[in-house]
Amino acid sequence: MKAVTTKTDPGHFFEDFKLGQRLVHATPRTVTTGDVALYTALYGPRFSLFSSDAFARGCGLVSAPVDPLIAFHIVFGKTVPDISLNAVANLGYAEGRFLAPVFPGDTLSAVSDVIGLKENSNGKTGVVYVRTTGTNQHGEAVLSYVRWVMVRKRDEAAEIVEQTVPTLSTAVAPADLALPPGLDFSAYDWALAGAPHAFEDYEIGEKIDHVDGMAVEEAEHQMATRLWQNTAKVHFNQFERARDPSGRRLVYGGVVISTAKALSFNGLQNAGLILAINGGRHVAPFFAGGTVFAWSEVLDKADLGAAGALRLRLVATKDAPCAEFPDKGGEGVYDSSVILDFDYWAAVPKRV
Amino acid sequence: MKAVTTKTDPGHFFEDFKLGQRLVHATPRTVTTGDVALYTALYGPRFSLFSSDAFARGCGLVSAPVDPLIAFHIVFGKTVPDISLNAVANLGYAEGRFLAPVFPGDTLSAVSDVIGLKENSNGKTGVVYVRTTGTNQHGEAVLSYVRWVMVRKRDEAAEIVEQTVPTLSTAVAPADLALPPGLDFSAYDWALAGAPHAFEDYEIGEKIDHVDGMAVEEAEHQMATRLWQNTAKVHFNQFERARDPSGRRLVYGGVVISTAKALSFNGLQNAGLILAINGGRHVAPFFAGGTVFAWSEVLDKADLGAAGALRLRLVATKDAPCAEFPDKGGEGVYDSSVILDFDYWAAVPKRV
Amino acid sequence: MKAVTTKTDPGHFFEDFKLGQRLVHATPRTVTTGDVALYTALYGPRFSLFSSDAFARGCGLVSAPVDPLIAFHIVFGKTVPDISLNAVANLGYAEGRFLAPVFPGDTLSAVSDVIGLKENSNGKTGVVYVRTTGTNQHGEAVLSYVRWVMVRKRDEAAEIVEQTVPTLSTAVAPADLALPPGLDFSAYDWALAGAPHAFEDYEIGEKIDHVDGMAVEEAEHQMATRLWQNTAKVHFNQFERARDPSGRRLVYGGVVISTAKALSFNGLQNAGLILAINGGRHVAPFFAGGTVFAWSEVLDKADLGAAGALRLRLVATKDAPCAEFPDKGGEGVYDSSVILDFDYWAAVPKRV
Repeated sequence: MKAVTTKTDPGHFFEDFKLGQRLVHATPRTVTTGDVALYTALYGPRFSLFSSDAFARGCGLVSAPVDPLIAFHIVFGKTVPDISLNAVANLGYAEGRFLAPVFPGDTLSAVSDVIGLKENSNGKTGVVYVRTTGTNQHGEAVLSYVRWVMVRKRDEAAEIVEQTVPTLSTAVAPADLALPPGLDFSAYDWALAGAPHAFEDYEIGEKIDHVDGMAVEEAEHQMATRLWQNTAKVHFNQFERARDPSGRRLVYGGVVISTAKALSFNGLQNAGLILAINGGRHVAPFFAGGTVFAWSEVLDKADLGAAGALRLRLVATKDAPCAEFPDKGGEGVYDSSVILDFDYWAAVPKRV
Repeated sequence: MKAVTTKTDPGHFFEDFKLGQRLVHATPRTVTTGDVALYTALYGPRFSLFSSDAFARGCGLVSAPVDPLIAFHIVFGKTVPDISLNAVANLGYAEGRFLAPVFPGDTLSAVSDVIGLKENSNGKTGVVYVRTTGTNQHGEAVLSYVRWVMVRKRDEAAEIVEQTVPTLSTAVAPADLALPPGLDFSAYDWALAGAPHAFEDYEIGEKIDHVDGMAVEEAEHQMATRLWQNTAKVHFNQFERARDPSGRRLVYGGVVISTAKALSFNGLQNAGLILAINGGRHVAPFFAGGTVFAWSEVLDKADLGAAGALRLRLVATKDAPCAEFPDKGGEGVYDSSVILDFDYWAAVPKRV
Repeated sequence: MKAVTTKTDPGHFFEDFKLGQRLVHATPRTVTTGDVALYTALYGPRFSLFSSDAFARGCGLVSAPVDPLIAFHIVFGKTVPDISLNAVANLGYAEGRFLAPVFPGDTLSAVSDVIGLKENSNGKTGVVYVRTTGTNQHGEAVLSYVRWVMVRKRDEAAEIVEQTVPTLSTAVAPADLALPPGLDFSAYDWALAGAPHAFEDYEIGEKIDHVDGMAVEEAEHQMATRLWQNTAKVHFNQFERARDPSGRRLVYGGVVISTAKALSFNGLQNAGLILAINGGRHVAPFFAGGTVFAWSEVLDKADLGAAGALRLRLVATKDAPCAEFPDKGGEGVYDSSVILDFDYWAAVPKRV
């Protein structure tokens, strides 16, 4: 009889990764309006561009694209079995660029290239850096980003010969931001979009409290995570999690990102279209039952011609309204309520 | 630096409404089969007309329209940020008419006209009456209804000059009921529909216990409400609700309507198509964990030619089976189990 | 006034069934990509054939078919009001054959033929055997299976004249397995499918621990069950269930099947396409809050020409990892953790 483990995938351990290695991730995924409906039900986003085919056509597109975060979650989910099944921690994102809009009917697949490896001094773990690319059925890249995670070694004695830490940009340069082909905000309907705030109205340094709070239930985060075929055990295996000090399933960080992004409508009504992810940190774990609040800060502005772009910092908290903008202090220590610090570029229409 | 509140929408207070004012609501919404699947998963409706394209074609339509309550929830949800974000209570509905069927792919938007204002004697609140119209991508009205809500004043000293209370019909007249164009019940498949009960079989005064009970979970009502981009804080912000005497998130009243309507299949199998909402009252708040039961009473009948119409009263209860038809007593005081009293017209096939 | 019970469906009792009787089930159902999205969100399946239109086209199909279990759940759900509303227990399945693939846009309806009746000696219940057939909008059978359930008598004195117990196969013969027309695995993309394991790599007697555990929440099983318009009270009516010794709503057995099937990806990555259900037993009730684990055993193999077929036994447990393959002992008594024992045939690509 065959051994059990030859067919069950144990995931990769740190010594399994090699610099320059390309991982082809399983399970291509056709995106549908069913996914969009579930995304709406799970987060309640109100950005018109993703909500209405008619509105999207008024912006020069053939129909409503899906929220770029849907593409991100799908591609990210595919990488989990190969990259982070044995991860101790998800350390960061960088150089995330949305390269082409995704529409219902498109099929996404993903590959990851190992661009960095750094063993930790304890000899038990190491940090793996991958650049992941999501591609549609035409072979066109729709998304690219770097992620680094701390991964366990299977065998502490395993020697890691080739190591390197890649140099990563702190933010995607405006020249590298890609607007969806055909995007034309010249007839933008500000009333249907929900607010008159244009690119010109936002100032660097401006902070916006998004006011509303959104509770997250166990069933919701499990559905949200399975929808993207993300298999990380910590989100689902309550039997095993009962032995963790928390005793709880961990909410997938992407749920916090999407929840906070949906809340950001209140103040950033015209800045729904993410163009790039400069960085992101899941500052503290989040568990079901908590209520997410969020605030944003305008970090930078760039005029892309057909649209403006805002570089935004989206900070999410747990059980803490954000009128006082809970943040990190001078020594970089975050307020205990903060669970997410996410840095991205979004397109926003110009007034003229 | 700009003030925070210039971009965050605080919602309208009583003194912000003016008679004759038209509010254009944000976020048009394309309805999809994904919405229909979620509606089915959340309530379990079994009316064949909305479940099967083939059945709908047998009734003269091009494909299955969505349940009219989906159109209602979508349009209602759009009005919340402008009408009821600062509402103390949702007081009633009247003159609701479904004017054209909605199919997956249609895009709905909504406007509301302020038709009545009445300040309360305490000077702290007032009642706002709006007539809301939902329109599809062709500019065709699909739904119109009046709603009145009690809204807080921002400033108690604000003077409300022009006030009026509109005269509203207690029920939509049969002559004002609109059947979907092309609807033809002459080849109606009673077996596939689930019961042989025709227009002729229902009698005014008849009461029907719908027997089954349906529990509602927190995750379910949150998803059901976000799906329609309804942002009312009371449904989602558990952190804030913890300070309410109930300590609980309130279930959106539309969840109770749709749950009771789905339960009504058992006895009203052929009366799924709502034509009008005559009135509705959320008699008591409903919280997750409760089990909804329902019963119906035939209030009136009208022969519309191509179909019959039943005026029905749908009463929902919490944790109380309805074999004894829990109701309001002689003095108009409801049995403590009643949570909804909803008055509507539905189309029903005639036998011949 | 009419009696209430003439319009409310009480379901059939044992004495209502007659040998040779055909029951036409209500509510035909158009399957959509919305259903597929919900199925993915509820279970997290990763079989590429159902996940990607592009992958399915690479296998000779016009687009991704829906998971055969979706067809099974839909057809099964339709039978509940007529067959098992008054059932005491769901006893078994046999001779389940998937006869044609189902694609989004197809409309399914169902009929059941009563093929067996056997009164129990206590005079209070009897066993009903039905052969149920699911049909698409072209009148083509997509699924056929036998189910037997124990049903209460309305009147213990009722005499059951004609009784018979049908002879049922223990397994569907390989010659009766139907591959989807056009299925062609010659260009199968093993990397995108997630594993290189071909028909030739599986051995009879081989056991596979699927490792991962999946928790099920109340909201999830309710949504999963309502999605298929399954009305069995035990899954939804918490008010009534509070009087049951368990005090809990029972999870629909199909939820356990689909959860375990999704978990089986880890080890059976290329065996997603169920061709037949040989039998199935819900060994113990399952309640929300538990974590499902699963393991599989290869019972048999058959070469179908265009593909191989594996006869698999899928065993699911509650709160018990399956490294030790919890099973039934020599006397047929199951380990207390086992909740499902499911026997099916699945297609799997051959290496050459």
